[in-house]
Amino acid sequence: MRQIGLAIFLLAGICAAQDNSGFLPATTNVPGAEYPRVDGNSRVQIRIKAPDATKVKVNFWSGPKVDMEKQPDGFWLVTTPPMAPGLHYYTVIIDGAEVSDPSSYSFYGGSKDASAVEVPEPGATYYSAQDVPHGQVREVWYHSDVTGTYRHAMVYTPPGYDTQTRTRYPVLYLQHGAGEDETGWIRQGHANFILDNLIAGGSCKPMLVVMANGYAKRAGQSATAPVQQMAAMQQMAAVFGDDLTQALIPYIDSNFRTMADRDHRAMAGLSMGGMQTFTITFNHLDLFSYIGGFSGASVPAAPGQDKVDFKTAYNGAMADPAAFAKRVHVLFVGIGTDEPARMHENIEKLHKSLLDAEIEHVYYESPGTAHEWQTWRRDLKEFAPRLFKTTSGGKLTQAAPSAN
Amino acid sequence: MRQIGLAIFLLAGICAAQDNSGFLPATTNVPGAEYPRVDGNSRVQIRIKAPDATKVKVNFWSGPKVDMEKQPDGFWLVTTPPMAPGLHYYTVIIDGAEVSDPSSYSFYGGSKDASAVEVPEPGATYYSAQDVPHGQVREVWYHSDVTGTYRHAMVYTPPGYDTQTRTRYPVLYLQHGAGEDETGWIRQGHANFILDNLIAGGSCKPMLVVMANGYAKRAGQSATAPVQQMAAMQQMAAVFGDDLTQALIPYIDSNFRTMADRDHRAMAGLSMGGMQTFTITFNHLDLFSYIGGFSGASVPAAPGQDKVDFKTAYNGAMADPAAFAKRVHVLFVGIGTDEPARMHENIEKLHKSLLDAEIEHVYYESPGTAHEWQTWRRDLKEFAPRLFKTTSGGKLTQAAPSAN
Repeated sequence: MRQIGLAIFLLAGICAAQDNSGFLPATTNVPGAEYPRVDGNSRVQIRIKAPDATKVKVNFWSGPKVDMEKQPDGFWLVTTPPMAPGLHYYTVIIDGAEVSDPSSYSFYGGSKDASAVEVPEPGATYYSAQDVPHGQVREVWYHSDVTGTYRHAMVYTPPGYDTQTRTRYPVLYLQHGAGEDETGWIRQGHANFILDNLIAGGSCKPMLVVMANGYAKRAGQSATAPVQQMAAMQQMAAVFGDDLTQALIPYIDSNFRTMADRDHRAMAGLSMGGMQTFTITFNHLDLFSYIGGFSGASVPAAPGQDKVDFKTAYNGAMADPAAFAKRVHVLFVGIGTDEPARMHENIEKLHKSLLDAEIEHVYYESPGTAHEWQTWRRDLKEFAPRLFKTTSGGKLTQAAPSAN
Repeated sequence: MRQIGLAIFLLAGICAAQDNSGFLPATTNVPGAEYPRVDGNSRVQIRIKAPDATKVKVNFWSGPKVDMEKQPDGFWLVTTPPMAPGLHYYTVIIDGAEVSDPSSYSFYGGSKDASAVEVPEPGATYYSAQDVPHGQVREVWYHSDVTGTYRHAMVYTPPGYDTQTRTRYPVLYLQHGAGEDETGWIRQGHANFILDNLIAGGSCKPMLVVMANGYAKRAGQSATAPVQQMAAMQQMAAVFGDDLTQALIPYIDSNFRTMADRDHRAMAGLSMGGMQTFTITFNHLDLFSYIGGFSGASVPAAPGQDKVDFKTAYNGAMADPAAFAKRVHVLFVGIGTDEPARMHENIEKLHKSLLDAEIEHVYYESPGTAHEWQTWRRDLKEFAPRLFKTTSGGKLTQAAPSAN
């Protein structure tokens, strides 16, 4: 009897282990919500209450699109295959209605407040709140004569900013992607915690990070829906560029203790924000000396062209590689290995063109991540420690290795 | 022919006016969303894409719960009767699934990121961004030995805070309601714009406003879902009270240029936040001298009791009305005329008891508003100008009338 009892106990243990499977509520859930859940193999469980629905699907924007199964209790459930680490936007489609999951916090992406689930990356602590000094995240409202409106921006101030009142700081202008807004780098990207941790680790200079809204309409322009077309995007980059250079930078330099010169001003952005970064910085190299494109850049090469012609592209700024290396201290181009082919090809073309022309730059490939926030968090972790460690006229010094 | 043409033109104009009806996209819509729409009579139109659904309802939490009608294009539409002015939380129920409207920004309320539509109040400019100097809204992370965690709070700093570096400021601690969080007073309440406008109008002293998360678990306590029961709420108020007094106030006083004494420290809150305010301040009158309950207070009277017994209630603080008037400079109790009867009765009981006992207080009834944000925006507008204009030992001076 004892052996049978032991066998039953063992079987029960195995069954219990299979049921429990290490699934824990995601950190992106609203307080008290059990689902979504994530397990040790990076599988995600979504559970939706839709008792009278006939069809419910979950749509991961860079992941699986899967039918959910109705359970006896009226809830719908799905378990995904293992997913890449990081924050994954998703929506739920209930009888044709694409909506957010009530159990998830909202994140502004895809031009709406969407759901997202955080799949932890084993061993990665650099983008979460650690036991180190924390900076502040400020919301500011600045007036722009370019748009004729007040505009909202976020400003990260590093630890010690309020007490070290004689210290002035360099500034990184950091932009979101299409369908996102000025909250993206904080809410999705955790840029504030990334900077807190890099600064605490000693690999990164204390700096301000300014995050603006890249959607801008010139005063007097008629109101239109957010832009999708490339040509219209480039036109909007020009408007935003004027807002940034004529309104926001003067506001920041007047209201924060900045080092207001090009050696201490950087710009980077993800996707559309990277395209805007290249467009704006190469038109204003008097203002910026650090440039970063995270899964985005403007690559001025015609579809048939294999390479970029640096004699003419980017206002000819890179026609003379030696002069460029003195003028722009870091040119950073990043891409995830699992991004859509079209995006990967574009960035690879730029990288290969820069290599062939012997133009100094940093090329970073994020392994195993897609056109998603984990790629961009890693980009920031690679980019920020390289900032503000060189001066105009000097050689590009070896940047300190970024903290892991 | 000309007269017929004129008649047709006039008829067309009337029909066009009826179709157009002055419906405009709400300010709470995500960029580019046409719906929800609001007209000049405060009617709200909601439109949801749910082509395969059989039943779609819209649920206004303090308003109508109405079936939507399916249109030929697969969209569902509803037009409400005229609604009270202000921000109205709502959800959409699609075949039994209660979800947010993808066209609306999200606001954390009801323990989830919910939708809300802003119905303008004609002539009211006090809670929107005007052409006046703007303060900043800061996010801070402070460590709490009470909860054993880092906690997130919002801090409004008034215009001039960063430049007038010799000036110190009084502080208002301002709390959210049940199912909300530390973002509520900014995202829903627009407390920052209310203060910007009151300060610009000269009726209000520049002050810091600190908004914390009233949900707190003592370090070592087991994790539980957000609290609903009154007794459990009171227990949590004690934990939050310890976090506020032992962790947050010292953090604020160390990191901001505050006037760190009871004459320059106020606390107020809405609903559960008002109950927490009364519980915490009356247990810490050494720390606070201004108390505000917005649609919420703790009213220590047994159900059968008609009146509060001030000899014992509130630690006997109000047993001697004259002494109390010197000690607490403003006791403010507010309620909306259209709130649920139970809530109204509770606050009226407190007010009548205070009157009978000749205890000085401010009683404010917001006309025509319910247990909703318009009531609390108005409460803040009435309360803030009364703050920090008296000193300990002096008489309660006539507060300047609040700006309209």
